[in-house]
Amino acid sequence: MSKILRVNMASRNCLFEDVPESLRVLGGRALTSGMVADEVPPTCHPLGANNKLVFAPGLLSGTEAPSSGRLSVGGKSPLTGTIKEANAGGLASQKIARLGLKAIVVEGQPKDDRFWLLRVNKDGASLLPADDLVGKGMYQVDRLLWKQFGRGVAVVGIGPAGEMRLTNAGISVNDRENGPGRYAGRGGLGAVMGAKGIKAIVIDDLGGPGVQPADKRAFREEIKKLSNSLLSHPVTGQALPNYGTAVLINIMNEAGGLPTRNFSSGRFEGAAKVSGEVINELATKVRKGRGKVAHPCHPGCVIKCSNVFPKPNGAYHVACLEYESVWALGPNCGIDNIDQIAELNRICNDVGLDTIDAGATIAVAMEGGLLSFGDGPGAIKLLKEVGKGTPLGRIIGNGTAFTAQAFGVTRVPVVKGQAMPAYDPRAVKGIGVTYATSTMGADHTSGYTIAPEILGVGGKADPFAVSKAELSRNFQATTAYIDSTGYCLFIAFAILDDPKGFEGMYRSVNAMCGIDMTADDVVAYGKRVIKTERSFNEAAGFTKAHDRLPEFMRLEPLPPHNTVFDVTDEELDQVYAFEL
Amino acid sequence: MSKILRVNMASRNCLFEDVPESLRVLGGRALTSGMVADEVPPTCHPLGANNKLVFAPGLLSGTEAPSSGRLSVGGKSPLTGTIKEANAGGLASQKIARLGLKAIVVEGQPKDDRFWLLRVNKDGASLLPADDLVGKGMYQVDRLLWKQFGRGVAVVGIGPAGEMRLTNAGISVNDRENGPGRYAGRGGLGAVMGAKGIKAIVIDDLGGPGVQPADKRAFREEIKKLSNSLLSHPVTGQALPNYGTAVLINIMNEAGGLPTRNFSSGRFEGAAKVSGEVINELATKVRKGRGKVAHPCHPGCVIKCSNVFPKPNGAYHVACLEYESVWALGPNCGIDNIDQIAELNRICNDVGLDTIDAGATIAVAMEGGLLSFGDGPGAIKLLKEVGKGTPLGRIIGNGTAFTAQAFGVTRVPVVKGQAMPAYDPRAVKGIGVTYATSTMGADHTSGYTIAPEILGVGGKADPFAVSKAELSRNFQATTAYIDSTGYCLFIAFAILDDPKGFEGMYRSVNAMCGIDMTADDVVAYGKRVIKTERSFNEAAGFTKAHDRLPEFMRLEPLPPHNTVFDVTDEELDQVYAFEL
Repeated sequence: MSKILRVNMASRNCLFEDVPESLRVLGGRALTSGMVADEVPPTCHPLGANNKLVFAPGLLSGTEAPSSGRLSVGGKSPLTGTIKEANAGGLASQKIARLGLKAIVVEGQPKDDRFWLLRVNKDGASLLPADDLVGKGMYQVDRLLWKQFGRGVAVVGIGPAGEMRLTNAGISVNDRENGPGRYAGRGGLGAVMGAKGIKAIVIDDLGGPGVQPADKRAFREEIKKLSNSLLSHPVTGQALPNYGTAVLINIMNEAGGLPTRNFSSGRFEGAAKVSGEVINELATKVRKGRGKVAHPCHPGCVIKCSNVFPKPNGAYHVACLEYESVWALGPNCGIDNIDQIAELNRICNDVGLDTIDAGATIAVAMEGGLLSFGDGPGAIKLLKEVGKGTPLGRIIGNGTAFTAQAFGVTRVPVVKGQAMPAYDPRAVKGIGVTYATSTMGADHTSGYTIAPEILGVGGKADPFAVSKAELSRNFQATTAYIDSTGYCLFIAFAILDDPKGFEGMYRSVNAMCGIDMTADDVVAYGKRVIKTERSFNEAAGFTKAHDRLPEFMRLEPLPPHNTVFDVTDEELDQVYAFEL
Repeated sequence: MSKILRVNMASRNCLFEDVPESLRVLGGRALTSGMVADEVPPTCHPLGANNKLVFAPGLLSGTEAPSSGRLSVGGKSPLTGTIKEANAGGLASQKIARLGLKAIVVEGQPKDDRFWLLRVNKDGASLLPADDLVGKGMYQVDRLLWKQFGRGVAVVGIGPAGEMRLTNAGISVNDRENGPGRYAGRGGLGAVMGAKGIKAIVIDDLGGPGVQPADKRAFREEIKKLSNSLLSHPVTGQALPNYGTAVLINIMNEAGGLPTRNFSSGRFEGAAKVSGEVINELATKVRKGRGKVAHPCHPGCVIKCSNVFPKPNGAYHVACLEYESVWALGPNCGIDNIDQIAELNRICNDVGLDTIDAGATIAVAMEGGLLSFGDGPGAIKLLKEVGKGTPLGRIIGNGTAFTAQAFGVTRVPVVKGQAMPAYDPRAVKGIGVTYATSTMGADHTSGYTIAPEILGVGGKADPFAVSKAELSRNFQATTAYIDSTGYCLFIAFAILDDPKGFEGMYRSVNAMCGIDMTADDVVAYGKRVIKTERSFNEAAGFTKAHDRLPEFMRLEPLPPHNTVFDVTDEELDQVYAFEL
């Protein structure tokens, strides 16, 4: 039977608890949000003793289900003040699950500023001094911990940004090559981990009990349906493995919705130079050596949208260059040099920053006059300040809204304090509805309407149409369910178009848990998760007034379409106008 | 007939409008809050084109009424996100009123980063280039503008902090000696002025129409009653003129409610060295020369709580050393050297910072390890960074909450982003109720329950009793009325104890405006002002969850009484549970 591991950082006790029946069919995001809503006072200081940090594998993590190795991390966000779930691939989710753990909950706070290493294996859990890791970047931390605890262990850790409790600090998970680039990046949960005094968690599932579906035969059948669906869909079977998510650079640029130079244009003249196609070409042909595409972020992924990007000489540089990071650190800063972007990405991975907010932060600093748009070397120098802990580095490490305030910039592309991802809502209205209303702050992954609005997946929707509450609501609800299963959100591309795939998804969850949910139940499950999150946010002081895009996007037309964000407030307020 | 002057910074037009009947009996805070609520979108960016900055003399400013020269400044606050009224003495209020102006409203935003000087005199209003003043501190600005426009003109201006739009920037008003130390300091309205591109406003009332009461004879009678009351009360007639507001240092220290070293104790071992008694002794006896007590902050004040504090050699150092500033820059930072405190105060006046938030900021920086508690020279060096515009200076200039976030400090004594003044709410519960619920963020002046809780003025209330909603509500309502009249809030000490004085106050307003309000109407007037402000805040996204003190004050007992803040949330929510 699964357990919950509670780690109290005041007493340094590690306790294994039985899982109450009420949490049995919750996993991933449903579990992190449920536990945070139950146990964390909504008005507590996110970096204080009363916040908790919950790590939860999805319901199917650790099984053979394809692309099901996502780890959810939850807590109250120091960046947004809302409840937060950030999820990541890498090695951790499956190993935590295979140790028979449904969640690891870190609570309390040490009395001093020491850092600790949490070790979890078949024999239990313990806290070891981590003094020797303090101040080190995640590349070095991952290397040292494989050396100490054995190749292949999962490492969940924070860089100097998290140690300094900077509110754009993310949580790194290592991948199969022990690179630190799989991040539960958004919302500053790395700062919460820092505030708990945990530098890293090492998880070794050797000898663990593993994960067994309730109905093995049905499970095998359903995951096969889903696998077939994923392999045969053009997005998950071809585009993503070949070009990675950065295939979107050219697509969004063409659509006029690629935010450029701090959201001042939707089209970037240098887009083609940083596209997925170029990344593929350089990684697999021009710069042979250690470049790779069709690289899985975690074992058992069949989509393989990740890559390993090499330096000009073929040596390893960073894994991976995905769309959001390339956009944030590239076009949004006016930078069209892919190697400079790779270096910026590597610094984020090492210091421990979310790439989206880091790129949006640099762009705001550029607008504030600290450096010029397009100045790649200047951006690299600026981002390195974070790891040094200088006052400037602390400003940058606290993210976009903070940096804007420091330098008097009023064009600030954030919602609830979190920077917008790589789709300008003035050119794609539905994603703007998601940004505005998501329980997480501006977040594309919480309701990815880009699928129908731009990619023609799951139907077609006019990106400029303004009635998008229902579309966003449906995506947000289904997403909340998927985020609870351990399945990667990218399975949505296939299952939106293929009923067999959709069936394979939710019926595999049924077979796993010994339940019998219908397709309608999937949406209801997701809505319950969102309601839970929304109630937390309301108690923390959030209202409709926070479900709004920044003022400048209503006033300033975006080239080339020269449109503003004109979805009405009433339409935005319809997103959550549902009963359960 | 009075006019409203509207200055549009986009077009650089200055327009004089008639006053609509609906605004006729509104002045000071009632007028700034009313106009901001009517004209500013609650969710706008405070530093964007849609915010407005309203300067309004009180209803009686410019008359012979005693201590009636307070100027209200209003807008949406970039520090708190709420509506804001900050008020100041100095020369401006009376001169604006005597020019026949009920308010000056600055709106829009220049297209570039140039700064302007607004000149207002009997011939009208005009905007002059202020390029030569940019970057200059307020001491120099005041000197230059008297030289250019004549001795005695009123100067309302911002230092480099406001130019940089730092959210702890205040707005300076000069006094009779042309010192810049009369600040509409709280809430960052200096940043709004900076965002409007106005460096200074020069007001010359020579040849203006003056201010005439509707019923001159009744007016003369009523203000005489009030004057007598002020001169005969021990607080306004003796304590304040002799020792200034800093008379409270010893009193609050004795009460165990003088926040010390970032609100970690209520008693400071060095309090006696920085008390009002010491200031008096040094200013009037030990260091003769340019020291003064019983100094009025504006002409016609009979309370004269201000002072001029000299350097050890007798030369002018700063005016004035008042309680909040001495506390914030002294005991709250563990600093017991009065000359270091005076220097810190002078830097605030020059660079253009609110002293309360500046002191709370330094204390938080001390807690964050940047320097040690008690390190006066270090604090002076740190505060000087603000004027230089370094990254560290920009952190400090953005105030307490911002600095805490930069350096990972979680003991942050703010409400709605604004730092608490000089009374620890764990030792004086009523003032905590005011801090929590004020429409302005933590603000003692919006409901000064210290009068009955500590001073025994207006009755006696046990500071540790937790049923304080009604007390705070009554103080908040009456205060909102007084803040609208131009009368200094300190008249409250006398009129709370003396019904004749109270009568003189509101009947002088009646005589001025030709109205016939009763004592009950006074409270209703104040409640209407608060309701207006509260509605703005609600539309901006504020809820009950924001009407709370910081978490640490509920958890961490305050020596020497070792009490926490234990007023219930239900009690706090009773403050606004009134109908009109």
